[in-house]
Amino acid sequence: MTVHTVSFLPHNREIQVPEGTVLIRAAMEAGVHINASCGGEGVCGKCRVIVESGEVAGGISEQLSPEDREKGYRLACKSLVTGDVTVRVPVESAIDTSVLKQSYVPRKTARIRQMDLNDLKEQGLFLPPVEKIYIELPEPDNQDHLPDVTRLVSHLKLHHDEHRLTVSLPVIRKIPDVLRKDGFRVTATLARPVMESGKTEIVNVQPGDTSDRIYAIAMDIGTTTIYGQLIDLKSGAVLAEKGDFNGQISYGEDVISRIVFAEKAGGLEQLQKVAAETINKIVNGIVRRSKVDPDDIAAITLAGNTTMTQLLLKINPRYIRRSPYVPASTLYPPIRAVDIGLDMGDHVTALVYPAVSSYVGGDIVAGVMGSGMYRDERLTLFMDIGTNAEIVIGNRDWLACAACSAGPAFEGGGIKFGMRAAKGAIEDFSLDPTTWEPMLMTIGNVRPKGICGSGLIIMIAVMFELGLIDNLGKFNRDLATDRIREDNGVWEYVLARAEETQIDRDIALTEIDIENLIRAKGAIYSGCMTLLAEVGMDKADIERIILAGGFGSYVDLEKAMTIGLLPEIEPEKVTFIGNSSLMGAKMSSLTNRIRRDVVEVTRSMTNFELSETPSYMDNYVAALFLPHTDMERFPRLKERLSRRRDNA
Amino acid sequence: MTVHTVSFLPHNREIQVPEGTVLIRAAMEAGVHINASCGGEGVCGKCRVIVESGEVAGGISEQLSPEDREKGYRLACKSLVTGDVTVRVPVESAIDTSVLKQSYVPRKTARIRQMDLNDLKEQGLFLPPVEKIYIELPEPDNQDHLPDVTRLVSHLKLHHDEHRLTVSLPVIRKIPDVLRKDGFRVTATLARPVMESGKTEIVNVQPGDTSDRIYAIAMDIGTTTIYGQLIDLKSGAVLAEKGDFNGQISYGEDVISRIVFAEKAGGLEQLQKVAAETINKIVNGIVRRSKVDPDDIAAITLAGNTTMTQLLLKINPRYIRRSPYVPASTLYPPIRAVDIGLDMGDHVTALVYPAVSSYVGGDIVAGVMGSGMYRDERLTLFMDIGTNAEIVIGNRDWLACAACSAGPAFEGGGIKFGMRAAKGAIEDFSLDPTTWEPMLMTIGNVRPKGICGSGLIIMIAVMFELGLIDNLGKFNRDLATDRIREDNGVWEYVLARAEETQIDRDIALTEIDIENLIRAKGAIYSGCMTLLAEVGMDKADIERIILAGGFGSYVDLEKAMTIGLLPEIEPEKVTFIGNSSLMGAKMSSLTNRIRRDVVEVTRSMTNFELSETPSYMDNYVAALFLPHTDMERFPRLKERLSRRRDNA
Repeated sequence: MTVHTVSFLPHNREIQVPEGTVLIRAAMEAGVHINASCGGEGVCGKCRVIVESGEVAGGISEQLSPEDREKGYRLACKSLVTGDVTVRVPVESAIDTSVLKQSYVPRKTARIRQMDLNDLKEQGLFLPPVEKIYIELPEPDNQDHLPDVTRLVSHLKLHHDEHRLTVSLPVIRKIPDVLRKDGFRVTATLARPVMESGKTEIVNVQPGDTSDRIYAIAMDIGTTTIYGQLIDLKSGAVLAEKGDFNGQISYGEDVISRIVFAEKAGGLEQLQKVAAETINKIVNGIVRRSKVDPDDIAAITLAGNTTMTQLLLKINPRYIRRSPYVPASTLYPPIRAVDIGLDMGDHVTALVYPAVSSYVGGDIVAGVMGSGMYRDERLTLFMDIGTNAEIVIGNRDWLACAACSAGPAFEGGGIKFGMRAAKGAIEDFSLDPTTWEPMLMTIGNVRPKGICGSGLIIMIAVMFELGLIDNLGKFNRDLATDRIREDNGVWEYVLARAEETQIDRDIALTEIDIENLIRAKGAIYSGCMTLLAEVGMDKADIERIILAGGFGSYVDLEKAMTIGLLPEIEPEKVTFIGNSSLMGAKMSSLTNRIRRDVVEVTRSMTNFELSETPSYMDNYVAALFLPHTDMERFPRLKERLSRRRDNA
Repeated sequence: MTVHTVSFLPHNREIQVPEGTVLIRAAMEAGVHINASCGGEGVCGKCRVIVESGEVAGGISEQLSPEDREKGYRLACKSLVTGDVTVRVPVESAIDTSVLKQSYVPRKTARIRQMDLNDLKEQGLFLPPVEKIYIELPEPDNQDHLPDVTRLVSHLKLHHDEHRLTVSLPVIRKIPDVLRKDGFRVTATLARPVMESGKTEIVNVQPGDTSDRIYAIAMDIGTTTIYGQLIDLKSGAVLAEKGDFNGQISYGEDVISRIVFAEKAGGLEQLQKVAAETINKIVNGIVRRSKVDPDDIAAITLAGNTTMTQLLLKINPRYIRRSPYVPASTLYPPIRAVDIGLDMGDHVTALVYPAVSSYVGGDIVAGVMGSGMYRDERLTLFMDIGTNAEIVIGNRDWLACAACSAGPAFEGGGIKFGMRAAKGAIEDFSLDPTTWEPMLMTIGNVRPKGICGSGLIIMIAVMFELGLIDNLGKFNRDLATDRIREDNGVWEYVLARAEETQIDRDIALTEIDIENLIRAKGAIYSGCMTLLAEVGMDKADIERIILAGGFGSYVDLEKAMTIGLLPEIEPEKVTFIGNSSLMGAKMSSLTNRIRRDVVEVTRSMTNFELSETPSYMDNYVAALFLPHTDMERFPRLKERLSRRRDNA
């Protein structure tokens, strides 16, 4: 990847970006504001910059006069970085952001490094869950009438020191023909017991020597999206990866509406079926793409929240949504993949990640395992933020967890122009603190259609920090901008005018939207604080934060702290982990050690029901401000705000 | 049961028979010959007897003149014993059987006493395979969010000392609703591990207290007939029993033709399906009849020969019929009954009896277990005779077995008028050694349709002993009877004239029939002798013989020795055991001790392939005589024959 340096004047700020980066994104990344309200489609024509040295590709538009083009004017939203370049933001587009300079933090902090097979081996964490052994058996004859299964088992016992073997019926069915297909030369696939006391099972037999080909599937069963990976168990490499919307979406967007549907006649069966269908689609896709023989896939590991897990296993989840919120089970036995409608060989065992409670599910446990926090001595706060936010706190000695319902604001729900993080969603935002003009970036660089959750957080954080809204989330009605207006008794800030949008209506952020977001972030923050207090800890004890999930990958860390969604902590201590559920599923596919540890981890994880913890409501009410009633908890923000006030 | 004494004159022989016994059967049982060739339907009118004292019911026919009736003449085949009675067999109907008197042995010897639950307990053999425990769980509330499964498992752990519990997915699915049906009062069904190292599985949960109701099904999967029993595990009692033809019969009468059909496209699936359907029919029948709740049935134990077992488990049996005759497996893991198409609760585990080899199957192993011979110190010869005959020899220290193909003669196959043991089959026979007139008894006392296997043995034994046929199985052409005749170059003895039969044709026994029977009995006898020799034993070492199977229940012991089917041994040493396969299945249902022992028994049982044992063919050729080339092996018969010769 070729990287170039972009220098912005008059800010004197430099940033390294990959070749081909859109200039306006480089500016946003560098904390350089350029007015822009069409999301980067080149419609509004506001994002004019002057290329002072070096070159960019494109950026020339009818909205620029020939003279301007001559002078080096370009539209930043249409200019691609092709080499080192120095760009001046003209006065009409630029603001003095020097006040923000000190607060500039990298938008993306380090991702956790996923352990690979070598790491596991080096750290003594490698216990192969499945292995293939190639064997050449003596053929039966008039002196040797050993039954086929006995012949195989005895040989493994005598020549490979394999004891306590079991063989399931589907494999017994295969053995006679497979043995005779290649002159009693066969490869046996052995699944090792998770617990030492268990037995090794012969889960497959194949003619000839296939011992170099052995694969597993790891699967994250999300309420919205299901992701799968095909893993080469010989190398630990991910051969293919694929995600798709969970087919259950048609029956309800969130967990609760799925449970409601499952309670209807035939509902559970229907939800089970479509979830299995989505999984099958993904598995077939990655198997086809990677051209592996499905017969070489030995196992599938599934991680999902408690409701998704129960639905997939066809266990009615009705009691999950009823006080006292009791799940059917937290541990599940290994099951045959075909028994839950998975379109895989009947030798394939499905391992289902255990849960802790109704609202802290297998996806979170998988995250705890995948992130390694259960083996780390540092006190870690693990958060997976979505409609429901799950919080785990602890280290290798102890773990506690809780879940809180944030509502759908982070996914665009309850927000007037809210939408999922899809093409046209405003995902990034900057504000001119003098003209109050916005800089909008949309997913896909197209005209805006709405606002996604991560964009909303950035927007509100910027507005709050620059004083467009106060700590109650109300707009400063005194500012000299017609973007702040009252519409049907609700105050709002116009982000994009109708003609700049895809929806031919003004896109605005309303005070009701802000209120909803404050409630959502208040729920999560108070969840963290309550859990910390319950385990006798304080924010200062947190040695690191792990942010998991899709939302955790996109959220702007500093902005999330500014609005009081996350406790304020040094950004270096925060790690984005991405789909930690999938990561945990993959780890369990690679080594039995994780599968062994997870039982202990699940058992030892203390679950707190926040709705029944009295201090939770107090914490919640105190958090219904930007960032919080108690500004002392956010010293860095407080300092920035006071510096801004001094500058003003 | 009221029993009466019937005295026969001039023989001076008495016999005790139950009230309602047909007089001619009492005569046959007592060894008293009365001419009769219509099978007991009263058509031939030959079986005239005189009631001298006492009374019989019926027996009056148009074939008796009013004077004869007055004199006390009755047709024996139509007279029922209603009290003590003395009957004279007139000269025209009687023969002097005094010569046979000394050889009279009880037709049925003692049956093995099946162990019941108390015996098992007294002998320390009782390890309950399934148990129910009634428990009252604390209900979840805001302070107690234990998942439902954990709640159940923890309670069993804490209050019932139940450790190492597993719960399968079908049971997990049930638990949430069942717990709430009767206020968290539930009955858990626990299946104990067969091996001590195993885990106890919670196989069912039911609302309320059902701990007094727990049942199991035992099933014998025969090639021809399938039998099932419903067993009350609390008392050990058989609550209901039912047999039905194996639906596979339409696809071939014997094991080999079934295997051939299974090799056709879809054939295996079809045979699996119809076997399962027969089982379902039987299970539904006995469940309905006994009015038990199917949900209270905890397990099913299946015993069948190797081919029947493989077909039911949908394991292609093709290699069973191909040299070197290797079965797929001999041990099978516990499987879910629903997985093999059984119409039972999805909590029901099916246990399949292990086999020894392709032709010594789970039915024989079940017989060895059910008869207890594996625990007995006496050297026992266990025989199950049918199309295939299986022979086990040994005691509690060692066991050896072999199988030989007898051909279908014992089931009426290859016999001109052969038929299965059904209504109209000649099942008993006696012969007048002066007039050579027969006495025929048919099943159901109807006019004869054909000859069944047990009837054939009696017939040939009687004919041989009285000199109608010689030791090569050839008729004595010099005898003054038109019943012996040549038809199309084949010599035969006419058993019944066309008008006395149901088929409007003469029913005869031909020399070819006799030849076929000699081959069949020769195969079995030489099988026994070869196996004895292989283990270094002699006939004299045999301390008892156990005759198993339907054929074993009907065969006339003395006659079987007379023709040389069984080695000659004191009749007291012979035990009829009936359906020993079903008996073994029942024992395994009652105690895990049998299920534990059977693994060891199966492993330690030495199998001899007779077709590959050189001495077998020599033994076979020597056995192709009545009873054998070496008459010294049958000293009792030899003595009877010489006495007869002296008398003649």
